[in-house]
Amino acid sequence: MKNAVCLLVIIFVFVQCKSVKAPAGENFAIVIHGGAGTILKKNMSPELEAQYKSKLEEAVKMGYAILKNGGSSLDAVEKTINVLEDSPLFNAGKGAVFTNQGKNELDASIMDGKTLNAGAVAGVTTVKNPISLARAVMEKSEHVLLAREGAEFFAKENGIEIVNPSYFYTENRYESLLKAQEKEKNELNSGSTSFYDPFIKDNKFGTVGCVALDKNGNLAAGTSTGGMTNKKWGRIGDTPIIGAGTYANNNTCGVSSTGWGEYFIRNVVAYDISALMEYKGLSLENAAKEVIQKKLSKLGGDGGIVAMDKEGNITMEFNTAGMYRASINTKGELTIGIYEK
Amino acid sequence: MKNAVCLLVIIFVFVQCKSVKAPAGENFAIVIHGGAGTILKKNMSPELEAQYKSKLEEAVKMGYAILKNGGSSLDAVEKTINVLEDSPLFNAGKGAVFTNQGKNELDASIMDGKTLNAGAVAGVTTVKNPISLARAVMEKSEHVLLAREGAEFFAKENGIEIVNPSYFYTENRYESLLKAQEKEKNELNSGSTSFYDPFIKDNKFGTVGCVALDKNGNLAAGTSTGGMTNKKWGRIGDTPIIGAGTYANNNTCGVSSTGWGEYFIRNVVAYDISALMEYKGLSLENAAKEVIQKKLSKLGGDGGIVAMDKEGNITMEFNTAGMYRASINTKGELTIGIYEK
Repeated sequence: MKNAVCLLVIIFVFVQCKSVKAPAGENFAIVIHGGAGTILKKNMSPELEAQYKSKLEEAVKMGYAILKNGGSSLDAVEKTINVLEDSPLFNAGKGAVFTNQGKNELDASIMDGKTLNAGAVAGVTTVKNPISLARAVMEKSEHVLLAREGAEFFAKENGIEIVNPSYFYTENRYESLLKAQEKEKNELNSGSTSFYDPFIKDNKFGTVGCVALDKNGNLAAGTSTGGMTNKKWGRIGDTPIIGAGTYANNNTCGVSSTGWGEYFIRNVVAYDISALMEYKGLSLENAAKEVIQKKLSKLGGDGGIVAMDKEGNITMEFNTAGMYRASINTKGELTIGIYEK
Repeated sequence: MKNAVCLLVIIFVFVQCKSVKAPAGENFAIVIHGGAGTILKKNMSPELEAQYKSKLEEAVKMGYAILKNGGSSLDAVEKTINVLEDSPLFNAGKGAVFTNQGKNELDASIMDGKTLNAGAVAGVTTVKNPISLARAVMEKSEHVLLAREGAEFFAKENGIEIVNPSYFYTENRYESLLKAQEKEKNELNSGSTSFYDPFIKDNKFGTVGCVALDKNGNLAAGTSTGGMTNKKWGRIGDTPIIGAGTYANNNTCGVSSTGWGEYFIRNVVAYDISALMEYKGLSLENAAKEVIQKKLSKLGGDGGIVAMDKEGNITMEFNTAGMYRASINTKGELTIGIYEK
């Protein structure tokens, strides 16, 4: 009898243990992008391809380690983007493209899916890591979006690393500006200038972004960019626009965008994916496909997104020839991609 | 027999005429706001109240006349907002509030519901009518959002009226700045500064906006503001953010927001109303209630919206003590309001 009771207790405990739901902690994951655009294998040297893959792997592993150690998704997003910002390979931070006036004006934004708090900066020229400034705006001001000199003043007040604007000089990017301006001059002379110049399409990509889910079930998303080569008139793209370039909500998903910013603003791309999940019950994958392959493409917009839902499912959706991207899913599996799927 | 045929023909023609659907032309309408906030009757003199009502009526009738004469909803929105911008009563154009540095920095945006094209400007200091500049950005550049000096350069290039910054000086608004700064100084001395100071709540309202539907069934929406008294660090609110401050889509609705901009950005307020209609099938009225009374209020945000659906139904929803507002519906009925419904 005693043995039978023991057996029953053992069976009961065993069943209870089996039925305990996997703790939220098992579901951490991370996904990043380094820009979408006309990225073709025939134009890429094996050395450059290896450099991109290596930097993407370094960045995604940095964020994953933070999550694995119990760090927050906000920390993972910020630190991962810092790695990409510090590399000259991407159009963000160090590798930012030049404006029409030969300057580097950087934009970034970050959002916390738990609180729906957000921070963003536009047009900063002396901030080494704009994503870190965006986070300071979110956490240390009552504002969401700060611009230009005012944002830089706030950066100094809050101990954000300031660099001389010459830090952002890279020969490659400066040559791209000269090429863009030469092309513009020729067009002006020939009278063939077009607002929707296809050349623009290849000179606005390279934005970086990250979405992460931490062990506490909190989603965060962030995006950082140098904008568009030869941009004029203080143009601001989608990167610092919450809802267009970045969105995160623990109830639905986190999204970071990259592409032709004007179309992403007009389509409210990042929030639209969340809205399709919340209001129409679509999966993350289907919502992203609907927005990028149907709605964005219909208007003529190019680009892509990386996104993650609250269960840690990952989607990387783009309508361009390629998108620099990497992820480590909830099973710990690493994937790195550049060209079309 | 001949008479009988005649009678049948007459009946047939009559029935056909009756069954012809009302042409799109019968459904034109317009709605405007002049800001939401702690607007209480006990604080308002009868003279000032009369001034507000008279200006709201003048503005809404201006836009209505354009629509009645077959003009576009974009024209109606721009010209109506021009009337409000040219009045010192509202925090937009002439009556813009002062920044922390004693400047007037203006934001505006406009969206075309037919094409989903949009234009916006942030932080301009010399443009008499920012909404007209926003429209020029939409129609004459490949961009959506231009900021500060760059936007002003674009304004000059495109023949937009430029004024000396002193044009925006009004004694009332300057006194508000001095009061705000005095309060801030006292708080710093007493160590009681709070980011979420309730004082801020009453110093960021007065934004103006308009939504119109024209005889061709095209919706348009626009918003214009002077921002927040004593604002620092180049803060940008929701007004120039497509999806937050302004949204228009012929398939759903047009929306113009006013209120605590940071909350409107985090909630993607204007687009969210459209998304609830498109994805969840809500009526305009219920979608606006859901977003303003539930979602915005839940986060702690104050303010309101005016909106119109593609049939010309009008909603004016706010969670503050009042909102300056006026409309002329599809039946030609004028309403003007200031306090709670």
